[in-house]
Amino acid sequence: MTQFVKGRGAKSGLPPGTLVHIGETTGRPVTIHVMDYDGEGCRETELQSVSQCIPYRDKESVTWINVDSVQQADIIQQMGECFGLHPLVMEDILNTSQRPKLEVYGDYLFIVMKMLHHNDRSEVRVEQISFILGPSHVLSFQEGIAGDVFDPLRQRLRAGKGRIRSAGADYLLYSLIDAVVDNYFVVLEHLGEEIEALEDEVVSRPTPHTVRRIHGMKRRMIFLRRVVWPLREVLAALQRGESELVQDATQVYLRDVYDHTIQAMDSIDTYRDMISGILDVYLSSLSNRMNEIMKFLTIIGTIFIPLTFIVGLYGMNFKYIPGLQSPWAFYGVVVFMAAIAGGMLVYFKRKRWL
Amino acid sequence: MTQFVKGRGAKSGLPPGTLVHIGETTGRPVTIHVMDYDGEGCRETELQSVSQCIPYRDKESVTWINVDSVQQADIIQQMGECFGLHPLVMEDILNTSQRPKLEVYGDYLFIVMKMLHHNDRSEVRVEQISFILGPSHVLSFQEGIAGDVFDPLRQRLRAGKGRIRSAGADYLLYSLIDAVVDNYFVVLEHLGEEIEALEDEVVSRPTPHTVRRIHGMKRRMIFLRRVVWPLREVLAALQRGESELVQDATQVYLRDVYDHTIQAMDSIDTYRDMISGILDVYLSSLSNRMNEIMKFLTIIGTIFIPLTFIVGLYGMNFKYIPGLQSPWAFYGVVVFMAAIAGGMLVYFKRKRWL
Amino acid sequence: MTQFVKGRGAKSGLPPGTLVHIGETTGRPVTIHVMDYDGEGCRETELQSVSQCIPYRDKESVTWINVDSVQQADIIQQMGECFGLHPLVMEDILNTSQRPKLEVYGDYLFIVMKMLHHNDRSEVRVEQISFILGPSHVLSFQEGIAGDVFDPLRQRLRAGKGRIRSAGADYLLYSLIDAVVDNYFVVLEHLGEEIEALEDEVVSRPTPHTVRRIHGMKRRMIFLRRVVWPLREVLAALQRGESELVQDATQVYLRDVYDHTIQAMDSIDTYRDMISGILDVYLSSLSNRMNEIMKFLTIIGTIFIPLTFIVGLYGMNFKYIPGLQSPWAFYGVVVFMAAIAGGMLVYFKRKRWL
Amino acid sequence: MTQFVKGRGAKSGLPPGTLVHIGETTGRPVTIHVMDYDGEGCRETELQSVSQCIPYRDKESVTWINVDSVQQADIIQQMGECFGLHPLVMEDILNTSQRPKLEVYGDYLFIVMKMLHHNDRSEVRVEQISFILGPSHVLSFQEGIAGDVFDPLRQRLRAGKGRIRSAGADYLLYSLIDAVVDNYFVVLEHLGEEIEALEDEVVSRPTPHTVRRIHGMKRRMIFLRRVVWPLREVLAALQRGESELVQDATQVYLRDVYDHTIQAMDSIDTYRDMISGILDVYLSSLSNRMNEIMKFLTIIGTIFIPLTFIVGLYGMNFKYIPGLQSPWAFYGVVVFMAAIAGGMLVYFKRKRWL
Amino acid sequence: MTQFVKGRGAKSGLPPGTLVHIGETTGRPVTIHVMDYDGEGCRETELQSVSQCIPYRDKESVTWINVDSVQQADIIQQMGECFGLHPLVMEDILNTSQRPKLEVYGDYLFIVMKMLHHNDRSEVRVEQISFILGPSHVLSFQEGIAGDVFDPLRQRLRAGKGRIRSAGADYLLYSLIDAVVDNYFVVLEHLGEEIEALEDEVVSRPTPHTVRRIHGMKRRMIFLRRVVWPLREVLAALQRGESELVQDATQVYLRDVYDHTIQAMDSIDTYRDMISGILDVYLSSLSNRMNEIMKFLTIIGTIFIPLTFIVGLYGMNFKYIPGLQSPWAFYGVVVFMAAIAGGMLVYFKRKRWL
Repeated sequence: MTQFVKGRGAKSGLPPGTLVHIGETTGRPVTIHVMDYDGEGCRETELQSVSQCIPYRDKESVTWINVDSVQQADIIQQMGECFGLHPLVMEDILNTSQRPKLEVYGDYLFIVMKMLHHNDRSEVRVEQISFILGPSHVLSFQEGIAGDVFDPLRQRLRAGKGRIRSAGADYLLYSLIDAVVDNYFVVLEHLGEEIEALEDEVVSRPTPHTVRRIHGMKRRMIFLRRVVWPLREVLAALQRGESELVQDATQVYLRDVYDHTIQAMDSIDTYRDMISGILDVYLSSLSNRMNEIMKFLTIIGTIFIPLTFIVGLYGMNFKYIPGLQSPWAFYGVVVFMAAIAGGMLVYFKRKRWL
Repeated sequence: MTQFVKGRGAKSGLPPGTLVHIGETTGRPVTIHVMDYDGEGCRETELQSVSQCIPYRDKESVTWINVDSVQQADIIQQMGECFGLHPLVMEDILNTSQRPKLEVYGDYLFIVMKMLHHNDRSEVRVEQISFILGPSHVLSFQEGIAGDVFDPLRQRLRAGKGRIRSAGADYLLYSLIDAVVDNYFVVLEHLGEEIEALEDEVVSRPTPHTVRRIHGMKRRMIFLRRVVWPLREVLAALQRGESELVQDATQVYLRDVYDHTIQAMDSIDTYRDMISGILDVYLSSLSNRMNEIMKFLTIIGTIFIPLTFIVGLYGMNFKYIPGLQSPWAFYGVVVFMAAIAGGMLVYFKRKRWL
Repeated sequence: MTQFVKGRGAKSGLPPGTLVHIGETTGRPVTIHVMDYDGEGCRETELQSVSQCIPYRDKESVTWINVDSVQQADIIQQMGECFGLHPLVMEDILNTSQRPKLEVYGDYLFIVMKMLHHNDRSEVRVEQISFILGPSHVLSFQEGIAGDVFDPLRQRLRAGKGRIRSAGADYLLYSLIDAVVDNYFVVLEHLGEEIEALEDEVVSRPTPHTVRRIHGMKRRMIFLRRVVWPLREVLAALQRGESELVQDATQVYLRDVYDHTIQAMDSIDTYRDMISGILDVYLSSLSNRMNEIMKFLTIIGTIFIPLTFIVGLYGMNFKYIPGLQSPWAFYGVVVFMAAIAGGMLVYFKRKRWL
Repeated sequence: MTQFVKGRGAKSGLPPGTLVHIGETTGRPVTIHVMDYDGEGCRETELQSVSQCIPYRDKESVTWINVDSVQQADIIQQMGECFGLHPLVMEDILNTSQRPKLEVYGDYLFIVMKMLHHNDRSEVRVEQISFILGPSHVLSFQEGIAGDVFDPLRQRLRAGKGRIRSAGADYLLYSLIDAVVDNYFVVLEHLGEEIEALEDEVVSRPTPHTVRRIHGMKRRMIFLRRVVWPLREVLAALQRGESELVQDATQVYLRDVYDHTIQAMDSIDTYRDMISGILDVYLSSLSNRMNEIMKFLTIIGTIFIPLTFIVGLYGMNFKYIPGLQSPWAFYGVVVFMAAIAGGMLVYFKRKRWL
Repeated sequence: MTQFVKGRGAKSGLPPGTLVHIGETTGRPVTIHVMDYDGEGCRETELQSVSQCIPYRDKESVTWINVDSVQQADIIQQMGECFGLHPLVMEDILNTSQRPKLEVYGDYLFIVMKMLHHNDRSEVRVEQISFILGPSHVLSFQEGIAGDVFDPLRQRLRAGKGRIRSAGADYLLYSLIDAVVDNYFVVLEHLGEEIEALEDEVVSRPTPHTVRRIHGMKRRMIFLRRVVWPLREVLAALQRGESELVQDATQVYLRDVYDHTIQAMDSIDTYRDMISGILDVYLSSLSNRMNEIMKFLTIIGTIFIPLTFIVGLYGMNFKYIPGLQSPWAFYGVVVFMAAIAGGMLVYFKRKRWL
């Protein structure tokens, strides 16, 4: 969770616009993947160097350039120079501790958002993804610490199904954002299942570790909230149509993906409420269980205490104790003590203490 | 509760506007019920195929087409094509995990809201209902997992009582919304009774399960809040009269149903406060009860502990213990111990520990 | 508390504008009391039938028609027809589960607010009161489940003291609202005394019922908040002077009563904070008391446990135990045990456990 | 704390504008103190009757008339008539349960605020102070239950130091408000010291009364918040310069005192957070301490329980118990028991229970 | 924490604009350091007296005058007179208990913010820093209780690297603010590490002091929030470009540093949530541990209580107790008791109490 600021302090003292990669480093090579399409067809290439981007800059067909892994500052620098990006934009692309935001520059939009991954060990990983929307191109920069969620979109582009091939770069941007947001629901579904499992665990077999698991889940929700909440503003700003780069026909689609983020927020809030409830039930059942045990033990002790007193009474060494000599006294005392114990049991039972 | 996102993740990767039913499937056949009326009369039909809708599209009389159960994507698709609906609208009708919303399209309004059912086992079921308001028709799409609440309205249409037969499609929409909101109060009344029962249970015969029942009720309130809260905005937007489809005369009625949703919100908030109070009283009475038991048992133990010491004292095997030989010593010791026990009881009584 | 929705569900399915009384029924006969005044004099009448209202409708003198108990739908209906009220207004007058609100109709204002009564058994009763402000008349409709707070105002009208007889209908409306709001402070003062009594009780003689009394008080505050809070908006809207029915000279008076509602809100919030504090002190002192008792008892037990061990030691039946034969051994052991007990007491004292 | 509404209910039923003093009565005589100054000099008088005010009404020099103790309704009435105040203003001056507010009347401003006093017994007393700002005069009305904070200001007026003698009535008003707000910091400093003392007490020597002292401090903070919070709005409104009575040159000074109220609010909020923290630490250390005691006692008990069993074992009256006849058996058993006790101590030590 | 108001009360009663240093006094001599630069070069001087500032006032090159330690009122006074600052601005520079704010005066801007230092003993120290932005100069006033964070900036100015030497005074101001905000992340990173250490401590080796350490950390977060939160508004106001002193080209840089403060706020909020979670886990694990100990001890006691009763039974002095004479009876009883103890252990094990 402290990843928010980890490494962030290292930039302190550097001039603004200094390009330094902040974030996890995987050492994976950088790939630049280009999809260039229009109504007629779709051309796919893997670029070897950034300079190959230049022809795509002013082409009329729509171009999507996807840079996987932003860990090499020089490549981002070259991309930025090629497409005329502001130094601060390049800095933000490299600094993966950004929060989701939209920035409007003269002839392009800059969008930062977060992509979620839910891996096999049911951890939620977060990866920053930045978009640049130009007049006829979309650049996407992935942090590259896990796979991406754009394969179905690539398939649609290749197949030319649906509206996408005939629409502009703004619709491509929408499709990319939609793919990221749709994936939030996949992650939320996984988390929902884990929460239900946690709920079962709390009721049937709580352990001392349960409280930490509950808090871990709570923290993940806080984290997701921080990822999704600012996205709402980003999409609302996009949808208000202040930029000429976004056409009117795309507004209704952006409203749709805006609705989805609201739904995701709703789910996260519901999950948080559920987790709070689970914690309350857990703490209450824990203290209930403990109380039951202590009560049971104390009742056993309380039943034997008077009996122990009675046997002590006849263990005194006085010469004259009534009944000491009687052959039946021992049995009498035992029966008497059984009666006391029975009476106490009945009393406790009636008071519903047992 | 996790139903919010259940199945929602399955859509991830599909192009926007893909028609997939998301929600519970009952397998009930789809029925298309038409009521067409004007000042003179009301004609009722059960349509066999969607194409039969076409004549109603541009008729001057008001037409209400009710589609029960939106579980077949193709029927929604045909309806949408017939009435010129946007693909995203059709997608939202099919996806029953929407939150209440109003969307204004050029010549029609799209409204999503939730219908509540309180069944015999005192569960609250939620069903999505979508409305399309056109110039002279209202389409309603029910999720169809329980009955609907429109029968009294149908009776009024048939009987021609009140303002409804002479008013336009916007008044019909209002009447449908009003029927749904009115039903919220029926559900809230049932829940109110359950809360009062819960309150009695907490005071008179709390069990370890009570805490879970309280949390279940709390969760239902959170859930209802999410259903009702966005509806407020929907109705406020409708009432602001931005669309020409809603006439001025209908505004005052919409303000009335808006007031009702505020009242429902108020009731829900009051219930939540009551439930919090019940939980506090429950926890406090539980710990109180436990404390009383432990105190009682500890006091019994504490009274016998010195007595047991005294009998032990005279059980020592020393040759010379004063009084061992005396014939009255035993009785003396017993009286002495009774005095100690009595003194302790009086002391505890005075300190109000008993 | 569930009175908010009680009976409200019964209206479900009825057409809007259906006149049904919702609320408590007392069976008291309906009285229609008229005070008609101008600069010269004040005429008071008790009307026998609604039709007698008609002459007052367009009179130039100011008329106050007070309907006590709105439990008969037909009388409200006739009043409404006589003064040209909207069906929804009549419906709202009859439905006593409204929240405070202001509605502006063309030539009249409709105001709903709540009147509080604090009866001898220190319960707070709520009664709905609705006002209609016309050009020269004010209609007031009381729920009629307790008395009203207008007697001082009636006296002033009769006596002709102050500004009231020379001012218009809007000033009369202000005076009525002011009387209702002033009475809130009477009720709040009573509750303040009860809260202080509760505070004393918590400190000096808490009982297991105290927690429920505290929660009862908390709930009453939540309830009062819901009564007063929306009134603030009503008065703010009135004071903004959007309607021509309210003259400029009356604005400053409305601002004054607006200030009073803010003060009432402040008091309610202060009371809520006090009650929370009382609850905390109660729970803390309860657990403190319990801990003190348990500590005391456990200390007694702990002092005797080693002593009981020692007497047991000399109660063993070994043939050779040092000292058994000595005539002073018994006294020696007793002194030794007294020393142990004393030492433990000193130790516990020093550690401040006693 | 209930002083908010105390006595307030007594006004219920009286016509608006009725002059009744609401608040604490001290019986001190009313003094009317006048300071009249311009660039040249400062004249100071103690007025014998209200009618002597009249000459100051339209004078060109700036006049400050300070009425100490507003407990006599007739004097306020005469002042009001002399300076043409609205009846509701006079009513508010007398009613000392007002919250801070600014009211703009045609040719004067009416301001209500609270003056704080921190007396020797470290109680915080609140006194209402009302200001009227006219074109060339400021009237100030003190509740008069403690001294005031204006002596340094009077000195400055007499000495003619600084800007004050050459500035207008609005600057005088600012100086008065500034004196009151500056004094808040004196009170807050005292409270800060008490909070730090409380913090020490909680850590070093908590007593059962501590919780009530903490809650008392918390309540004082809630109270201060209510005093300072509305003042913010008052000063913001003054500073917006809507009234011609406040000159542009004074705006920057009002912004300064506005900043001070924000600082005071910040301090109050910080104090509240500190008090919450203190309460948490207190409760946690209390339960910690109690747990330590109980644990220690229980461990002592647990060590002796098996030993007592063993001595009981050899106290049985069986004829044949191995070792009873052996001369070393007693010592053997004692050593064995010491070994058990030692073993248990080591075990508990290792488990960090001791 | 009470440093907010410490010493602040001392100003009560002084006229506004009185120059009094409020804050910690170190006795360090005041240094006035000047950096004057343009595209060509950078000249650095240490001034001996304030009067030497005058030539820099209207120079065309950009001048940065840094006053380290504002503890001498007369120097600030002379600076203020030299640059024509308002008396209230001088007062605010000296009063180091300001909250971050921006004030717009005719030809200069006044900004107050806080500089953080994280020293070796992992304390967070706060130092006030004030900026004056004139047409071609920036004055900075440091509280001077620790070092500053401007050395990298000074290096850049000397080296002439980046945009800074060619940009105006507004860019210099931005660079200074950016340096301060960047340093927040260094401090936050340190705190993040401490929070993680605290988390480990809670899980592995909690001590009674842990709760105070957690609360100390919580308080630091509240404190940081108060430092960072108002800065957001300051930067938002600067960025809105209302003053002509800030050029358009600098806006995008200010937006960047605004984003950084939002990120810092996010981190602080995340830390607060983490600390709350740590506290919950701590309290829960503490009570869990205590419960485990008490349960273990009580179980030991409960096992021995019936055994002690049995040995007491055979210790009674009745003449006829069955088995007393039998040579195997002792062994029989011991075996019987072992069976009871074993049975109880099995029972407790099965119930999962052990």
